[in-house]
Amino acid sequence: MCGMDKSEVTFSITKVAGSHREKRNDLLAVEEPLEIRITHGKPDHREQKNISVTMRTPGEDQELALGFLFTEGIITSINNVSSVESGNNVIDLQLSPDTTLDLNSLQRNFYTTSSCGVCGKASIDAVMSKVPGSIGTSLIVSAKALMNVQEEMIRHQKLFGNTGGIHASALVNKDGAIEMIREDVGRHNALDKIIGALLRENKLPISNHFVFLSGRAGFELVQKAAMAGVEVLAAVGAPSSLAVEIASQCGMTLLGFVRDDRFNIYCGADRIESQ
Amino acid sequence: MCGMDKSEVTFSITKVAGSHREKRNDLLAVEEPLEIRITHGKPDHREQKNISVTMRTPGEDQELALGFLFTEGIITSINNVSSVESGNNVIDLQLSPDTTLDLNSLQRNFYTTSSCGVCGKASIDAVMSKVPGSIGTSLIVSAKALMNVQEEMIRHQKLFGNTGGIHASALVNKDGAIEMIREDVGRHNALDKIIGALLRENKLPISNHFVFLSGRAGFELVQKAAMAGVEVLAAVGAPSSLAVEIASQCGMTLLGFVRDDRFNIYCGADRIESQ
Repeated sequence: MCGMDKSEVTFSITKVAGSHREKRNDLLAVEEPLEIRITHGKPDHREQKNISVTMRTPGEDQELALGFLFTEGIITSINNVSSVESGNNVIDLQLSPDTTLDLNSLQRNFYTTSSCGVCGKASIDAVMSKVPGSIGTSLIVSAKALMNVQEEMIRHQKLFGNTGGIHASALVNKDGAIEMIREDVGRHNALDKIIGALLRENKLPISNHFVFLSGRAGFELVQKAAMAGVEVLAAVGAPSSLAVEIASQCGMTLLGFVRDDRFNIYCGADRIESQ
Repeated sequence: MCGMDKSEVTFSITKVAGSHREKRNDLLAVEEPLEIRITHGKPDHREQKNISVTMRTPGEDQELALGFLFTEGIITSINNVSSVESGNNVIDLQLSPDTTLDLNSLQRNFYTTSSCGVCGKASIDAVMSKVPGSIGTSLIVSAKALMNVQEEMIRHQKLFGNTGGIHASALVNKDGAIEMIREDVGRHNALDKIIGALLRENKLPISNHFVFLSGRAGFELVQKAAMAGVEVLAAVGAPSSLAVEIASQCGMTLLGFVRDDRFNIYCGADRIESQ
């Protein structure tokens, strides 16, 4: 999909509803890296700097780059910009000669190493190279165990019950019982808390359990799950395109829209047993 | 709240339902920075390194730090860790002497500059110092204009309709009509796209309009909105504690749970006109 600048993409998925199972095509929101580069300096001494690689849905990339640089305090007006050019998942932005680049303004640094490249393919390779060993193939989860996990998770979510505004990750056994749950405003943090707890008990890679997420499944969550050897990752929300691609290449089973007695299987359907 | 390690906190809010308005206490999920520091090296030459500041909900901080370092590839086993100590929004983790710290493994850099400090207060100061001028006080939004914006946004959301898994930000006029909408897998990107489009048209700071978010309102979104001079920020989901604190100090009106004919006012109630 690299460089195709599509914001949605068709995947073939397996839709499960009760004991019914069918293959169909489904649309996923595309998630791909965008690299933002700035050229700055006086006319006789121009320099190029990579500012950020952000995971985004293609479309309005120039607006995204301009907005990002403004909200991060790097530019303060469109007059700071002499040109903006779009490349292959890259934005090249030229600062006007009288605008100085103050990187101390950057409140955050994003994906700044070479490990997260310019196209989805490079990101996948980077993730794959870090996954410790291969993901196991011993886990089978029954469709029944997935039914009602969302309800049970909400019952377990103390903070969600009180605030209505927090994510959770849960470690769930093959019977669908939640054995550990962690909450956080950041969904990646909730998953890191689960993985950290298991690391401390020397229980990584995760075996005989699946992981359930309260929100959507993006690139970062699949990557973290892959590091922990998660065989089956199930989410209440939708996955992104890159999440499915990484899960697929890692040999992970990825499920989305897991609600009541329904869910979608995006890859690894052989680990999911029918009712 | 700095260092109190609470995962939820009580705020006084104004609850609006139709023409009814009442003050009450509400619980918010706490969002605060956690700084992760690593001490490494041989016994005669120990060095300390700040690895990351991540915005998180306090609780299980040690697990979060361990999980983060594992999923980022910095540690591969609990044997790499000789001790973990919790401080005031800080985790100090000692690597065992035979473990080398390879920061090239870090796929991302997080909040690494001094501008995002160790406690919520420092973060607020950092944000405040970057907000260009003060936020205006001219916008009045009627409760009526807020009703049904969510429905109208979903009608406008092409990608959400197709994929069910994407965030949106909208620029909405005082009558509740959506004038611009942007979608992205990253909610911060959707807002940056709106701000970038307005920057290009020389229409910043935002005036006579409010901004509507499809998800929750965290620290980062309020910060970006403040940079663009947003007077009223309204979200379908809940705000975090830090989001309310920053909005309050910036003089921004922050609304949450904006659905059907109901919403909560967390701060800046004087900009919201009753029906």
